[in-house]
Amino acid sequence: MTSRTTVDQHAAHIAALLAPALAARATELVPLENALGRVVADDVPSPVDLPFFRNSQMDGFAVRAADVATVPVALEVSGDIPAGHTIPVVLISGTAIRIMTGAPVPEGADAIVPVEDTELILGRDDDLTGAVVEIKRSRLPGEYVRERGSDLRQGEVIVPAATRLGPRHLAALAAAGVAQVTVREPVRVGILTTGSELVRDDRPAEFGQIFDANGIALAALVEQAGASVSYRGTSDDDPAAFRKVLDAAVAASDLVLTSGGISKGAFEVVRDVLEPLGAEVTTIAMQPGGPQATAVVHDVPVVCFPGNPVSTQVSFTVFVRGLLLQAAGLPAAVTAQAALAAPIHSIAGKRQFLRGRLTEPSLVEQVSGPSSHLVAGMARADVLIDVPADAVDLTAGTDVTVWTL
Amino acid sequence: MTSRTTVDQHAAHIAALLAPALAARATELVPLENALGRVVADDVPSPVDLPFFRNSQMDGFAVRAADVATVPVALEVSGDIPAGHTIPVVLISGTAIRIMTGAPVPEGADAIVPVEDTELILGRDDDLTGAVVEIKRSRLPGEYVRERGSDLRQGEVIVPAATRLGPRHLAALAAAGVAQVTVREPVRVGILTTGSELVRDDRPAEFGQIFDANGIALAALVEQAGASVSYRGTSDDDPAAFRKVLDAAVAASDLVLTSGGISKGAFEVVRDVLEPLGAEVTTIAMQPGGPQATAVVHDVPVVCFPGNPVSTQVSFTVFVRGLLLQAAGLPAAVTAQAALAAPIHSIAGKRQFLRGRLTEPSLVEQVSGPSSHLVAGMARADVLIDVPADAVDLTAGTDVTVWTL
Repeated sequence: MTSRTTVDQHAAHIAALLAPALAARATELVPLENALGRVVADDVPSPVDLPFFRNSQMDGFAVRAADVATVPVALEVSGDIPAGHTIPVVLISGTAIRIMTGAPVPEGADAIVPVEDTELILGRDDDLTGAVVEIKRSRLPGEYVRERGSDLRQGEVIVPAATRLGPRHLAALAAAGVAQVTVREPVRVGILTTGSELVRDDRPAEFGQIFDANGIALAALVEQAGASVSYRGTSDDDPAAFRKVLDAAVAASDLVLTSGGISKGAFEVVRDVLEPLGAEVTTIAMQPGGPQATAVVHDVPVVCFPGNPVSTQVSFTVFVRGLLLQAAGLPAAVTAQAALAAPIHSIAGKRQFLRGRLTEPSLVEQVSGPSSHLVAGMARADVLIDVPADAVDLTAGTDVTVWTL
Repeated sequence: MTSRTTVDQHAAHIAALLAPALAARATELVPLENALGRVVADDVPSPVDLPFFRNSQMDGFAVRAADVATVPVALEVSGDIPAGHTIPVVLISGTAIRIMTGAPVPEGADAIVPVEDTELILGRDDDLTGAVVEIKRSRLPGEYVRERGSDLRQGEVIVPAATRLGPRHLAALAAAGVAQVTVREPVRVGILTTGSELVRDDRPAEFGQIFDANGIALAALVEQAGASVSYRGTSDDDPAAFRKVLDAAVAASDLVLTSGGISKGAFEVVRDVLEPLGAEVTTIAMQPGGPQATAVVHDVPVVCFPGNPVSTQVSFTVFVRGLLLQAAGLPAAVTAQAALAAPIHSIAGKRQFLRGRLTEPSLVEQVSGPSSHLVAGMARADVLIDVPADAVDLTAGTDVTVWTL
């Protein structure tokens, strides 16, 4: 047993225990197409100037600004540059070249006159041979010209290290011709659920047995927090069976989570196996989720939650979710303030995490009872109502902290 | 051309155009393991009572409350029920049965005395033969007994239709033995990017060519909004080439998005192909993103964005993102109010969506210029600053709406 008894003490202990594993992750090179939501390991510099080449911001005519200083003026159309034209063109002074948005501005031109300020007075749109265009509006040098490098210079950073790649980052990387990026590997989390009462191998439940709700809940919570599930195992209350899945989980993972087997019963398999390995088992003044433990096995941190399904989910949410979100570069889990829609009775000396639902953005009502087996009640909740340890009777309207699920 | 000119008018038009496709999606049956984040099509009723059987909330001793009304009292230990014990047990009046959390409460017992309120005065933890336990605290009938069905009754709804499945829903479904659920298929979105200037087939960019930033941006935006990318194609400015990828996209999709080819240049491939099919092409008083179009091809709605990369991303964000999020059961995209950190100059008559970054929760600064080609500038933004059409000079401190990217 340790002297930790409060939620904050245990949370700090777990944060310290996990810090090395969360920091030391490997990196991998992935194609841009698979990089949405990944976190870049390093600054990504641009291999090119963006734009690559000086190009037109408008459909219109490329001119020398000096040639259109007095308008209207008629200019011979000496060329035509559609988008995708790959041959450099030079503008003959005193003429205009038709140009499309994004096409390279010809050498010698320094302004674009948008098509709506022009009129073909000789020739046709589909045949510019011998055409003449009337320019109706002057433009200053540089107008509607996108200079090379005006968005980003070669070598400048497109996305800084630790950015979680969203669509706009992928667009900028693609625009610069970056085809793959080095990203952090997600935290690999092994998940072990325990209990002789759990149904195995997709069989129907016999009397006295229950289905394993914790394995799928922890797997989903881990994925939602941006980590990956590296191993899933289940054992009954036989220490040899638990040791077997524990070893497999540790070998595959940066972090292992367990549920069940750490309280004071006669058959506490997680406790029985991990205590001889130096596990710290403690009772935190919280409900649900009092029994908690941590261990380190072959340098891999192991965080142990109690086995009641609500206890498991609440424990993950309170102690591990925020650390994984942060490691994944995801926005921190949200806590907010809300007012109680109705009075709540709590237990002195224990911090309660009651299941609640927001009925308005800042009004919360309790759903389901406080018991840790109410797994369907948990499904009806969208927040946890965080009731301080010293609170007993809270009146309607009392401000409380809520944790978004 | 249509008479629509404002962002709100065009947004309403697109919402109406897409409504049938978004509503009429098929459903599919998926295993619970693959259901995280999916939206259930119908109410899911519980096939069983939860809990399945009356069970103990504590490690301790099952007793008749009447037998422990006066304490301390010594009771013969007549049995031992570990978790997972599948044989129904009957309590002999005047005795106690050791029981673990979650194990079935024996018939005849109506209360559990937690182990901490008991002491074995004969026998050992690991050998209860002939054991006698001293009960030190009375318990009322029902205490620490979880009644069958106390969480949810057979036939009651575990998760209602349209719920997006999170970890807590999966836990409740798993606990009830539900192994697969009927979920809505994601909206299938086809994505077409156009332009003869786009580099194809992973070649390096020649002078005058650019890499396609819009295909990957739209694909990522679609995925992030909970839809699936059903087709991706690119064409140059040849109408036959565009028609080919358009037909393939329409055949595979509930909705097709295009970028490029809808403004007033000489080679507007999307416009040239879709206008004869009844497309509505319009100019919206917004920047970036003025040219916009919609069409319906073989009953599939087609929404066309302009091709500059920032225009494409902004158009999707303003016109389509919210509809897809809603269809996927995801939280609505967030808009918020923020104060300008510095003055902003805007263009009269056009609603501007400037790239901005929140420097504090409610203070926003402009990043990068307003031009629609600044794709790296867009990557530095985390919000769009929504500047009303009638605003020209906004002073520092002015309240504006921001759209979270």
